[in-house]
Amino acid sequence: MIYLDHNATTPPAPGVVQAMLATMTDVWGNASSQHAQGQQAKRALAAARATVARVLGCKPSEVIFTSGATEANHLAVLGLHSAVKEAGRQRIVFSAVEHAGHLALARALMAQGVPVDFIGVHADGTLDLDSAAGLIGPDVALVSVMAANNETGVLMPVDEVRALAHAAGARMHVDATQLVGKAPFDFARLGADAVSLSAHKLRGPKGIGALLLRQGVALTPQVQGSQERRRRGGTENLPAIAGFAAALEDLGDVAAAAVRIAQLRDALEQGLQRALPGVHVFSAQAPRVAGTSYLRFGPLAAEVALQRMAQLGVSASSGAACSSGGSEPSHVLTAMGVPRDEALGAVRLSLGEATTARDIEYLLAALPLLLAPLLDNYAAQAA
Amino acid sequence: MIYLDHNATTPPAPGVVQAMLATMTDVWGNASSQHAQGQQAKRALAAARATVARVLGCKPSEVIFTSGATEANHLAVLGLHSAVKEAGRQRIVFSAVEHAGHLALARALMAQGVPVDFIGVHADGTLDLDSAAGLIGPDVALVSVMAANNETGVLMPVDEVRALAHAAGARMHVDATQLVGKAPFDFARLGADAVSLSAHKLRGPKGIGALLLRQGVALTPQVQGSQERRRRGGTENLPAIAGFAAALEDLGDVAAAAVRIAQLRDALEQGLQRALPGVHVFSAQAPRVAGTSYLRFGPLAAEVALQRMAQLGVSASSGAACSSGGSEPSHVLTAMGVPRDEALGAVRLSLGEATTARDIEYLLAALPLLLAPLLDNYAAQAA
Repeated sequence: MIYLDHNATTPPAPGVVQAMLATMTDVWGNASSQHAQGQQAKRALAAARATVARVLGCKPSEVIFTSGATEANHLAVLGLHSAVKEAGRQRIVFSAVEHAGHLALARALMAQGVPVDFIGVHADGTLDLDSAAGLIGPDVALVSVMAANNETGVLMPVDEVRALAHAAGARMHVDATQLVGKAPFDFARLGADAVSLSAHKLRGPKGIGALLLRQGVALTPQVQGSQERRRRGGTENLPAIAGFAAALEDLGDVAAAAVRIAQLRDALEQGLQRALPGVHVFSAQAPRVAGTSYLRFGPLAAEVALQRMAQLGVSASSGAACSSGGSEPSHVLTAMGVPRDEALGAVRLSLGEATTARDIEYLLAALPLLLAPLLDNYAAQAA
Repeated sequence: MIYLDHNATTPPAPGVVQAMLATMTDVWGNASSQHAQGQQAKRALAAARATVARVLGCKPSEVIFTSGATEANHLAVLGLHSAVKEAGRQRIVFSAVEHAGHLALARALMAQGVPVDFIGVHADGTLDLDSAAGLIGPDVALVSVMAANNETGVLMPVDEVRALAHAAGARMHVDATQLVGKAPFDFARLGADAVSLSAHKLRGPKGIGALLLRQGVALTPQVQGSQERRRRGGTENLPAIAGFAAALEDLGDVAAAAVRIAQLRDALEQGLQRALPGVHVFSAQAPRVAGTSYLRFGPLAAEVALQRMAQLGVSASSGAACSSGGSEPSHVLTAMGVPRDEALGAVRLSLGEATTARDIEYLLAALPLLLAPLLDNYAAQAA
C-alpha cells in the first residue's frame, strides 16, 4: 500500500502511540483533581503544554487545547467575533477557499444576519490581495484566512493579510492546519491574533488540536467550564495532548523534510507529465506546501483515475476527505475559475514523511500503463 | 494507592487501551476518505457506533459523537433551543444542581437575554417536583436535568420531569454522565429527546462522549461539517470512539455491580459513623447511585480530612474536580440549604468497579485513628 493522502490524515508516529499508551496507563487522573493522581496529571499537562508552546513559538498560556482544528476554527471565529463590542464593527472576511467546514460556519453566520465577505483567488489559486484590500475596512471585526490550502497546497499571503487586518483594527485568524509540520511555523513571528491547528495532520492523535491565542486578545468561550483558563470547558484529554506534544517534538527539521518531499512531489508531477498526455497540475506555478499535488489526467473523471490507483494499492483523493464522495466540483477549483468538467477530474496526491522515492518510482512505472489506454483517444483528438 | 474519586474520572479498562492501540496502529485512516484506509476506518466507525447504540438502547443514527459530555451538553442546550422557532417558546429550565460547566452555560445564556429558570432541590438533594411543575409551562423550549448528581449521587426523577416537559410541549435533555455505567440505562425507555454522556467516567478514554438524539428531533449543529450526519463537524476520533465502544461493552451486568458497590459504600458510611463522632452523610436517605458518598467529619474542613486521607494513600475530593481547589462552598450543597461552614467540610468518596472490600476495610481501620484526635474536641462539645 502506498498512502498519498497525508492532507486527509497521517498515521500516528510510533512515539505518539507510545506517549498515549503511557499516559492512559500511568497518568489517567483528572488534571483538575487535587489528589495525587490529579496532580500527577496536572504536571503532565503542563509539561505537554510547554512542549507544544516551545515547538510552535508561543507561550504555554497562549495554547488552548480543543478537540481538533474544526473546533479551534469555530472558537476563533465565534469567540473573537463576539468579543468585539463595537456596534459598527461586525463584518467577517474569509477567503473563498477555506476548508469546507469553515465555509459552512461562514454560511451559518450569514444566515444569522452577520455580514460576511469572501476574498477571491486568482486562477492559480493564490489569494487576490487587491480583493482582500478592498474588503478589509473599518467595519471588519475579523479576517480569517488559511495558511495553506488543503486541496491545492497553495500558500496564502497571511503576513500581508494580517497587516491589512491590523491596519483596519480587525482581528486576524489563521487556519494553519495544512501548514504546521509541512513548513517552518512560529506563532510569535506570524503575528496573527489566533491560529488553529490539528494534531492528526502531523502524525499526532485524532481528536486533539489547538487554538493559539495571542496574549491579551479577548475571546468569548464557546464551551463553558473551568479548564484551559476558562476558555474551553471539559475534562482535559491528557493522553491525546501528550500524543500531540510527542508529534510536534518528533517533527525535527521541518525545512529539510520539506525540501526532500518537494523534490519527490516535483518528480511525481514531471514524471506523470512526461509519461502521459494531458496531465494538468493545478497551481503548479504558485508557491505551495511541499507534499501537495492537485492534478487531472486530461478528461478523465477523478473516480476513474482513483480506481486505477487503487488497483495499484495507491490511496489518493478527489479533494478534501470531508467532501469527497460527493459529485459536486471542488469549491476551491470553482473559485479559481476552473470549469466544472475539469474540476470533476481533479485528483489530490499528498505526500508525507513516510513517502519514499521508491513509492514515487513505482507509481511512475505502473500508473501510466493503466491510464495511457484511457488517454490515447484524448491524445489523438488533441493532436 | 486507593482511588475513591471515580466520579471525577476512572482508569481506562485494559480492553479500552487495547482497542485504542489497535485502532491507532491499524485503522488510522480518515473515515471520510474514499480509499482503502478510509473505508476500513468507516467500517470500524460503523461497528463502534452499532455497539454504543446497542448497549445504550438507541439506534446507531441517534448517536452523535462529541469530544465529551461538556460538549454534548452544550450541543443539546444550544442545538435544541435554537431549533425551536416559536417566538413565545424561548425559556430554558435547568435544575439548580447541574454540573458547574452546565450552569456556566445557563448563566452565559442569561447574559445573552435568554430567559432561564432553575428547579430547586429539597434538603436531601432530591429534585423539588413542585418547583419543576411550577416552572415548566407553555413558554418553555427546553428542560435540562441531570440523571444523577455528580456530588451527592442523588438520582433525579427524570421520568417525571420528562412527562412535565413533554406535556408542556418542551424538549427534554438529560445529562446522564454520572448515571451510565453506574445503573441500568436505556435511551428508548427513558424517552428523553437528548441524553449526554462521557466515556472517561465509565473506564473509557478521555476526549470522547456522545449526545444521543431521538430520531426526528430537530437540532441546530454547533460545529459545522459533514461528519456525524452534519450534526457535528470534525474528523471522527476513531481510536477514542473504538475505546468508548469497548468500555460500554465491558460494562457487563451493571445492576449486579451496583449492588456490590452500594454495599461497600454503605459499609464505608456506617463504619465511619460508628468509629467517629459527628460524621454526617449528605443525602443519606435519598435514592443515590451506587458508589457515591458525600459526607463531612463534624466541623473539619474538607482539606484537613483530605490531607489525612492522602497520608493513607487514599484519593478523594472535596466535590467536583472541575471546581475543586476553590474556596467556595459547593453550589449543590448551597442549593440544599446546607450552611456555608458545613458545606466547606464536604468530602466526596466515589467508589468504582475496581474498589474492593479490602480498600474499605483499610480505610475504616486507618482513617479513624488519624481523624479521632481532631474530632475529640468536637465530641466533647457535643456531649
